[in-house]
Amino acid sequence: MDLTARVEAKARAAREAASSLAVASTRAKNDALHQMARGLEEKAAAILDANRLDLDRAKSAGLTGAFVDRLTLTDARIESTAEGLRQVAALPDPVGEIVEGWRRPSGLQISRVRAPLGVVGFIYESRPNVTADAAGLCIKSGNAVILRGGSEAIESNTTIAHLLAKAVEKAGLSPEVIQYVDSADRGAVMAMLTLDRYIDLIIPRGGEEFVRLVAERATVPVLKHDKGLCHVYVDEGADVDMALAVTLNAKTHRVSVCNAMETLLVHAAIAPVFLPLAATRLQEAGVELRGDERTREVFGEARPATEADWAEEYLAPILAVRVVDDLDAAVAHIRRFGTNHTDVIVTESLASAREFLRRVNSSTVGVNCSTAFSDGYRLGLGAEIGISTSKLHAFGPMGLEELTTRKFVLEGEGQLRE
Amino acid sequence: MDLTARVEAKARAAREAASSLAVASTRAKNDALHQMARGLEEKAAAILDANRLDLDRAKSAGLTGAFVDRLTLTDARIESTAEGLRQVAALPDPVGEIVEGWRRPSGLQISRVRAPLGVVGFIYESRPNVTADAAGLCIKSGNAVILRGGSEAIESNTTIAHLLAKAVEKAGLSPEVIQYVDSADRGAVMAMLTLDRYIDLIIPRGGEEFVRLVAERATVPVLKHDKGLCHVYVDEGADVDMALAVTLNAKTHRVSVCNAMETLLVHAAIAPVFLPLAATRLQEAGVELRGDERTREVFGEARPATEADWAEEYLAPILAVRVVDDLDAAVAHIRRFGTNHTDVIVTESLASAREFLRRVNSSTVGVNCSTAFSDGYRLGLGAEIGISTSKLHAFGPMGLEELTTRKFVLEGEGQLRE
Repeated sequence: MDLTARVEAKARAAREAASSLAVASTRAKNDALHQMARGLEEKAAAILDANRLDLDRAKSAGLTGAFVDRLTLTDARIESTAEGLRQVAALPDPVGEIVEGWRRPSGLQISRVRAPLGVVGFIYESRPNVTADAAGLCIKSGNAVILRGGSEAIESNTTIAHLLAKAVEKAGLSPEVIQYVDSADRGAVMAMLTLDRYIDLIIPRGGEEFVRLVAERATVPVLKHDKGLCHVYVDEGADVDMALAVTLNAKTHRVSVCNAMETLLVHAAIAPVFLPLAATRLQEAGVELRGDERTREVFGEARPATEADWAEEYLAPILAVRVVDDLDAAVAHIRRFGTNHTDVIVTESLASAREFLRRVNSSTVGVNCSTAFSDGYRLGLGAEIGISTSKLHAFGPMGLEELTTRKFVLEGEGQLRE
Repeated sequence: MDLTARVEAKARAAREAASSLAVASTRAKNDALHQMARGLEEKAAAILDANRLDLDRAKSAGLTGAFVDRLTLTDARIESTAEGLRQVAALPDPVGEIVEGWRRPSGLQISRVRAPLGVVGFIYESRPNVTADAAGLCIKSGNAVILRGGSEAIESNTTIAHLLAKAVEKAGLSPEVIQYVDSADRGAVMAMLTLDRYIDLIIPRGGEEFVRLVAERATVPVLKHDKGLCHVYVDEGADVDMALAVTLNAKTHRVSVCNAMETLLVHAAIAPVFLPLAATRLQEAGVELRGDERTREVFGEARPATEADWAEEYLAPILAVRVVDDLDAAVAHIRRFGTNHTDVIVTESLASAREFLRRVNSSTVGVNCSTAFSDGYRLGLGAEIGISTSKLHAFGPMGLEELTTRKFVLEGEGQLRE
């Protein structure tokens, strides 16, 4: 069987198994999640053996540093993945939730009820723990899943996927609801993208270029997680201590993640007081500053920023800084250079707060808090599948709810259309 | 300027105008809708003149019948379109609705607030009244719109779009929020499909093949309205009178629409009583029957159905009929041949009703009512933009809400991520 046919066979098997999973009870799905957690723990040695093969291959290929770290499993990482599955079991089941309902003049009762999407395709890179995380979220939301991790983690992933399917079977569900595409060939990914007969949604995780390629090629709907070019705007009259704390936290909590601040905008009236303090603290924290002319007037040590800096997602200890005349200019800057991800204002003014929250059309807008809260767990969604930067279906951090759709349920006593 | 550049210029103008429309007050948007209605009425003569040019061209080209009927405007049709705009003004504004909210342990307040998508592209066929309908729904939901109607209606559409933009301006909003792509060239449509920098959503209306082409070519997200292959399943022990009434209504209310029943499934135990009665009534109503063998055993006049009939959306006075052994078989048939549109069970059994509603994964599932209720107005959405048969973003009849997204709003007092 050629590669495309093999991928298609897996997708078809997932689609067939999805219908019974869609109506499985919450208890059965939670049992499966607990069996999955137990399976990971019981087979930890086998997983670590498989992982060692992947690591040896990666090292022979000269890979190092952060890449190898992401690829590495340990007893502690396996334990924390198992714990993650138990936490998903403890979350409320989104399936069957009656979102809203009403009665029509004819007596027809309408309700909108959450239902699974069907089959979800997850395409991700080299962190093998994502295999269990993604499978767990799909099982809980009643969706069959087709997983395809980075080829560098293939031994770890196939071992994990195999034991997860066994665990699901122990709980009385079909093992076919978890499919793993175990070809290292990129053609396998391409084959998934056009299987819209069998797959309802594809979630790609990975670099910007990879996500764009998936979105371009796919006929299956894609939820894409693009760049996060996040801003903090320090308004005239902001509390300087709060502004300093938010600025430091938004930039330095973790510089490599999408919700980290990349550009700091400062109202001209507060710049002479705030900027030298902020710049010193940021430099002490190891952050390189790139400022526009007005920034450099009050803090000469900053390197000059160019237009390109406003559009750059550094994901590194570098910060672009711009002094703006007012809130209008800050909003205009964010609209022009932002990526609809997360933008925050620090202000004491109720009018400025309301204006900013209303006019900035990002998926997460905040007042007087760090951009780092833009995360499914921190927001209280209980899980995070990704952060959508496009507005359709989901916008911003996505939880289990985003793996469902809503159907209309009509209950009547023989109502006819006139 | 070449065609692509002209379309792009319109999209860019829409994008620029969208930001102020997104924060316009409900009152301003409603004023605009009333001005639009007044504009249509005041300029009815000019619209009818333009429409006459389109009709003359269509007739010279030998077009007739239903096509010419859809293209034809009359004083009454213009009046009813104007009335439609006033009804949209009377609907609640979806923008700014706080869908849900909660407080985190840190005191950070989270809310999810409805916001416009930004710019919506509407591509439709030859009914010129859609121009005003679509523009009205977009304005109300705070979205700029790029309209592109069928080339046969170009005179009517450009006249209408022009006066609508003027009306919007009278209400103090930017006329650029309504753009009309006035090229008869199909390349204009193709140009729209990849302008994802400026357009947030494309809604295509038209034939199956056209919609599929749009979905394939577009890099902009598309909400597609596919086939409606709707089923009624008459369960064992159903109330025969109710089953007859629902069957007749679902088939004959309007045969040419997507929510009309195309296949009737009948439980074997009720078939000898129900089917001859239903068949006679359907034939009296001019419906041609195509039955499987078991159907023909109790009603010999039916033509034999082939496998192809189960997959056919007739949109005509033809009905496929199949006798099934039980609810399981009915659900299996619907899952195999249905299009996730609308499926209904007629039953007196609570267990059957619950089972059917849970297991049939269509966008609208009903018990004891006609399939013809699957319609935004009949369901009480107040408007209908289309009926989505894919599960992402929207599933089933779409109202104003489906032209919005939800953003996270965070309100704090200096909260930092630990």
